[in-house]
Amino acid sequence: MPSELIELTGHIVDSGTLQRVLDQAIAAGADYVVEEFRLGHNKKDESYARVRIDAPTPATLETVLELITRSGATLVRGEGVELEKAPADGVLPDDFYATTNLPTDILIGGKWVPVANTEMDCAIVVSGGRKRLTARCLRMHRVKKGDLVVVGHAGIRVEPPARLTKERAFEFMASSVSSEKPKHLVIREIAKQMKATHKAGKKILFVGGPAIVHTAAGNHLQALIEKGYVDVLFAGNALAAHDIESNLFGTSLGVSLQSGTAVEHGHEHHLRAINRVRAAGSIAKAVKKRVIRDGIMFACVKKKVPFVLSGSIRDDGPLPDVITDMPEAQDAMRAHLPGVGLALMVGTTLLSIATGNMLSASVKTICVDINPAVVTKLSDRGTFHAIGLVTDAELFLKTLTRELRV
Amino acid sequence: MPSELIELTGHIVDSGTLQRVLDQAIAAGADYVVEEFRLGHNKKDESYARVRIDAPTPATLETVLELITRSGATLVRGEGVELEKAPADGVLPDDFYATTNLPTDILIGGKWVPVANTEMDCAIVVSGGRKRLTARCLRMHRVKKGDLVVVGHAGIRVEPPARLTKERAFEFMASSVSSEKPKHLVIREIAKQMKATHKAGKKILFVGGPAIVHTAAGNHLQALIEKGYVDVLFAGNALAAHDIESNLFGTSLGVSLQSGTAVEHGHEHHLRAINRVRAAGSIAKAVKKRVIRDGIMFACVKKKVPFVLSGSIRDDGPLPDVITDMPEAQDAMRAHLPGVGLALMVGTTLLSIATGNMLSASVKTICVDINPAVVTKLSDRGTFHAIGLVTDAELFLKTLTRELRV
Amino acid sequence: MPSELIELTGHIVDSGTLQRVLDQAIAAGADYVVEEFRLGHNKKDESYARVRIDAPTPATLETVLELITRSGATLVRGEGVELEKAPADGVLPDDFYATTNLPTDILIGGKWVPVANTEMDCAIVVSGGRKRLTARCLRMHRVKKGDLVVVGHAGIRVEPPARLTKERAFEFMASSVSSEKPKHLVIREIAKQMKATHKAGKKILFVGGPAIVHTAAGNHLQALIEKGYVDVLFAGNALAAHDIESNLFGTSLGVSLQSGTAVEHGHEHHLRAINRVRAAGSIAKAVKKRVIRDGIMFACVKKKVPFVLSGSIRDDGPLPDVITDMPEAQDAMRAHLPGVGLALMVGTTLLSIATGNMLSASVKTICVDINPAVVTKLSDRGTFHAIGLVTDAELFLKTLTRELRV
Amino acid sequence: MPSELIELTGHIVDSGTLQRVLDQAIAAGADYVVEEFRLGHNKKDESYARVRIDAPTPATLETVLELITRSGATLVRGEGVELEKAPADGVLPDDFYATTNLPTDILIGGKWVPVANTEMDCAIVVSGGRKRLTARCLRMHRVKKGDLVVVGHAGIRVEPPARLTKERAFEFMASSVSSEKPKHLVIREIAKQMKATHKAGKKILFVGGPAIVHTAAGNHLQALIEKGYVDVLFAGNALAAHDIESNLFGTSLGVSLQSGTAVEHGHEHHLRAINRVRAAGSIAKAVKKRVIRDGIMFACVKKKVPFVLSGSIRDDGPLPDVITDMPEAQDAMRAHLPGVGLALMVGTTLLSIATGNMLSASVKTICVDINPAVVTKLSDRGTFHAIGLVTDAELFLKTLTRELRV
Repeated sequence: MPSELIELTGHIVDSGTLQRVLDQAIAAGADYVVEEFRLGHNKKDESYARVRIDAPTPATLETVLELITRSGATLVRGEGVELEKAPADGVLPDDFYATTNLPTDILIGGKWVPVANTEMDCAIVVSGGRKRLTARCLRMHRVKKGDLVVVGHAGIRVEPPARLTKERAFEFMASSVSSEKPKHLVIREIAKQMKATHKAGKKILFVGGPAIVHTAAGNHLQALIEKGYVDVLFAGNALAAHDIESNLFGTSLGVSLQSGTAVEHGHEHHLRAINRVRAAGSIAKAVKKRVIRDGIMFACVKKKVPFVLSGSIRDDGPLPDVITDMPEAQDAMRAHLPGVGLALMVGTTLLSIATGNMLSASVKTICVDINPAVVTKLSDRGTFHAIGLVTDAELFLKTLTRELRV
Repeated sequence: MPSELIELTGHIVDSGTLQRVLDQAIAAGADYVVEEFRLGHNKKDESYARVRIDAPTPATLETVLELITRSGATLVRGEGVELEKAPADGVLPDDFYATTNLPTDILIGGKWVPVANTEMDCAIVVSGGRKRLTARCLRMHRVKKGDLVVVGHAGIRVEPPARLTKERAFEFMASSVSSEKPKHLVIREIAKQMKATHKAGKKILFVGGPAIVHTAAGNHLQALIEKGYVDVLFAGNALAAHDIESNLFGTSLGVSLQSGTAVEHGHEHHLRAINRVRAAGSIAKAVKKRVIRDGIMFACVKKKVPFVLSGSIRDDGPLPDVITDMPEAQDAMRAHLPGVGLALMVGTTLLSIATGNMLSASVKTICVDINPAVVTKLSDRGTFHAIGLVTDAELFLKTLTRELRV
Repeated sequence: MPSELIELTGHIVDSGTLQRVLDQAIAAGADYVVEEFRLGHNKKDESYARVRIDAPTPATLETVLELITRSGATLVRGEGVELEKAPADGVLPDDFYATTNLPTDILIGGKWVPVANTEMDCAIVVSGGRKRLTARCLRMHRVKKGDLVVVGHAGIRVEPPARLTKERAFEFMASSVSSEKPKHLVIREIAKQMKATHKAGKKILFVGGPAIVHTAAGNHLQALIEKGYVDVLFAGNALAAHDIESNLFGTSLGVSLQSGTAVEHGHEHHLRAINRVRAAGSIAKAVKKRVIRDGIMFACVKKKVPFVLSGSIRDDGPLPDVITDMPEAQDAMRAHLPGVGLALMVGTTLLSIATGNMLSASVKTICVDINPAVVTKLSDRGTFHAIGLVTDAELFLKTLTRELRV
Repeated sequence: MPSELIELTGHIVDSGTLQRVLDQAIAAGADYVVEEFRLGHNKKDESYARVRIDAPTPATLETVLELITRSGATLVRGEGVELEKAPADGVLPDDFYATTNLPTDILIGGKWVPVANTEMDCAIVVSGGRKRLTARCLRMHRVKKGDLVVVGHAGIRVEPPARLTKERAFEFMASSVSSEKPKHLVIREIAKQMKATHKAGKKILFVGGPAIVHTAAGNHLQALIEKGYVDVLFAGNALAAHDIESNLFGTSLGVSLQSGTAVEHGHEHHLRAINRVRAAGSIAKAVKKRVIRDGIMFACVKKKVPFVLSGSIRDDGPLPDVITDMPEAQDAMRAHLPGVGLALMVGTTLLSIATGNMLSASVKTICVDINPAVVTKLSDRGTFHAIGLVTDAELFLKTLTRELRV
């Protein structure tokens, strides 16, 4: 019977890692024998387990090993990673190792080398000579013919997520996305975390959807930007267009943001707003020419907060600043991620999932949406570390700015 | 071909009544000929239409007449209502006229007599001699053998809902339940309407669900009560039990309302809270004995705001004040409705629908829920006049109390 | 520092019990030292842990012990349960032990005695002399003055839920309520489980909401009843009234179930249907008098399938069979639970939670709703073992009856 | 006081057009006097109204005219359209007329000229000499410097939507998106409409999201394609990638589509599937090389059903067939729309809205989603004519293929 020895180290019981690995083995049709186990005596101690995986077929063994190495198990046999050349530009070797968003090391030349730019669903590409070996995550479309790509699953060590024991409010939310919990406490905690992120010299990324403008909550986001609480903004054509529309015409999608009445000519207004920015050449130029005199995008230009506006198939116009090519837009977003310590995602399913996929598990990720399905989807797609808050984006931003005394 | 002449008077075009009546005729398989039509020249003028309904069969004609008289059409032939005796206690004549929640008159003895206690899905019972004839709505289970009940649909005049032209924010919301609209404007309008209701000498009814306490928003409702913005409270065992639990133990369903951490022994706490009130005898007695020293129910007792706690099949305990028999609980609620000018329903599907069913269409009804389906259901069940606000109950109450400067 | 030794036995790692207990200790502010730990070598072996809980205060220790004994930890010190007399009818001692829905034993007179009628949120009442000691779960409102009630948490042993390793489709669903999973496989598995339940001599309980009739899926439920796949039916006034309406008038809430057209006089029809059954005296009498000739309730009467119709605050009528007093209705439902092996809950939030609260964790519970919040709520309220299926009730029943070849 | 005479012709009462126009005038702050009104005597007759709009300011008058001409009102004064040259490529004159998706004519040179390619939110560009004048809708980004663009709102006639009186099931659904209606009747009607569409020589467009594959319902869509019920397919990278993954590995997002068990290595599989197609060069080449041997995309290639795969910001890979530039992808979709008679949109918010925005109001549009918000959004964004069906995509497709006897 094909078998393999694996080991696990760290907070493997209270983080659920051991349970998860044994589960995955059983679920995939294999069996296990725990050969050695040491449980940490208290919450600070690490635990250790050495487990033999027995599988009915080599294929099942491969499947199990693929799964459990991604969960934190490491092969005991101590072989280094296997490398294979990419067969063509944008094409990986068939058996490439697909990364998680957890800190990862690879064993190469007898040494554990950390992998840079940890990101989910990438390949690991190794470069440099023996002495200056480096490993980094690379997206499929960026790989070049001949790049040395890690294949299989030997020589890979993934650090499983530890329990967060201090951040109680956060932890508590992490277990649930229910709207039936006291959210103002979580909002207070988010405010604290935002301040702590800046104190730690990290950046705050804000990812926002157009509902922020439709609900007349744009001024809250603008205030966050003006007071320095947003270091990068990811949004789409819609948020920017409706923000500019609201400043040019006082409406968003045809609803007056002053009186709340449905003026019903939103499409015209929002098209005209886009048209004027196209005429000016860009958002920054429209600000300079005083076409745009207020609002979220105005604040970004004035405060020099970089923004990435990514296109979408339902865009009108679009605004000249929108990056219409998707891999290009993804790479533009990716370029802003180093240094991000906290990502706040409000009212946008698509951009939340897109951004979540790019973030390292070490980035605090908070996803706010009135629809519980969005948060569920985010987790289903692999952003397990996201804290979901099922609430109203408008009233959330209002409360958050108050907490931050913006 | 069976046919009948009907007429319509009022703002029948801009309120959609004419379109609705013609729709109903066609939908039910009948046809129509507009014999006379006068459109009001401006928005103040009333319009008039006389329409002949032609149906293929007498049964179809009956169906159409039943529908359109409920929408505001009146038979031209001018016969009075037909009456029949109730065959037994709690049983109506088979062909009883089922009421709408719109102002209704019946033609009897050559005079139009208004129907008292307009409520949906009731029978109209006539009493008194020729000179002192009165008509009132009565629930099926309250009818007594021999009561004179209106049957058929001749001699009935329902006043169709007029357009509300002043209250723009409200009107705008009425057309939609979307969370993607600026809600703080509507909340401001609700605050104004609450003040206007009191100025007009009318009562404010608050209908609340337990999420108010789970989300630690109980103090906002308490403040509304203490400042006189709630004249009657309808709730269930859960809201009261969790409110009392939160004041006895600082938790609601096992979540600490101070720190937001999941203490996970909610069931015990909420059972113990109920148990202590049962030991005291009633909520009022528990307040007197200083078992309960704060919270929503405490405020009701102290401010002498009447409350009706109705039972439900999932209740624990229940608290001694809960009315466990459903028709009895409905009648207890009904007893508080005269004089109510505004009903604010927050976070409760079941009680919102139950209360909505009892309210006259003239009562301003606002239904707040994070789940759009609740508002949709309320309309589907006949409370067409309700304004739905899809938002977070906790942040809604927080914002409302701020608007009211409570 | 106050401390207590506890022990855990069984599949405590792969069921997550150990992780949960350590979590609860930390979350409540205590600390732990694992004094002994033996991990089962393979998936069949049981594991064992002896853990010392150290708490800063006696109160914290009490809180931790309360939580973890409910999760499966047992105090090592081996004292028996403490008993206290109920101070009045319907009132428990303040410190009563609140039950879980897991198999529970109590240590009394040196012996572990199993607790009968395991149900969540009850008290444990002990009766009989020393030799014939029995223990059973009792609801608060059923307790009598002087009953001997278990208080505190010494001498209580709860069997934590084991992993289900065979039923893969079920297990998989249990981890998620997403609609984005292949549901026909789960429906096939439900069909198998229904057959297996009967083969094992257990009963199938069906809990249904009115949407079953509104969506014209009543005939599928009727078929399940007629073919013997429903042994008990729990529903409300609405399901029964709309079912009878649909058989008397061919509509449900005013929608023709044949053509799908909105006839818009639903309220009348459903009131008339209730009125006719009230005139007949009961559903069974209306069947006998051939007032009701088809449908769900007809099938129940004909097949002698017992049903409990529980009242609700929004009921019209109600039907004479409806139990309008809530504790009475709960007890009527409870009386049918012994012998139930599988509960299928379709399209009803309120009754699903009410029934879930009464069920032992050993009953296979499947909750089907188009709204993911319902399943989430069910778990939040303690029915952790429920399998949630987020799908359309109508198409679910259609597919299920096909799978069962009904 | 500025005023303008407008007229309305057609089924303006029973379609709600008259009410809507008067509403819009009042809502925007203007007033009206009905100068002439003729109501059709029966349901076949057209009605006619001539109304004077009085506004307090010229700006208000402009606003009202803009709104009501889009709703079907035509200026009586009979002036032709005003034209202005586009100032630059991709930039429209500031005051351009923004189109609806309703049939539109413009008055030019004394003649009413129909506008080709009716699509929402476009400009109308006029070309050709006096004798061969043509008008067509053009997207902002396609306009060229110097193009003659219609500005203002004189000389524009929009045909308001008529009532559909025959298609009852459809009509009924149109009024509501509730899941609490009998859906199998609507599904039957959809099947009929699909057949009728083909009989009328029109194309069926299918717009699908990845949930179709995740729920193992891909085989139903494949069957629809194979039996000729899909003439064009719009999808994204995800649907195609998961479809190909499911055929290469038997999983979708890591869930085995055979057993329903969570294999948990979905990301790898779906990345490997994309990688293999990238290696092959395109989906068609991968089919030719027998890398892909079954599934939705296989069926499209084999049956020569054209497909447009549009990119999105959250794409992995993407597949080589995906159009990653958004305006390019929109234009690729647009190129397939002529001849489409029915659009069936299943389980995709983004593509449904994107496609809905491009469709003429004359295309029967059916949107199926388990989330009611999707359908609401579709209407909010202007696709008023869409029929929303709130149900489970998987069971919907299963039922539809059965109805079509595929």
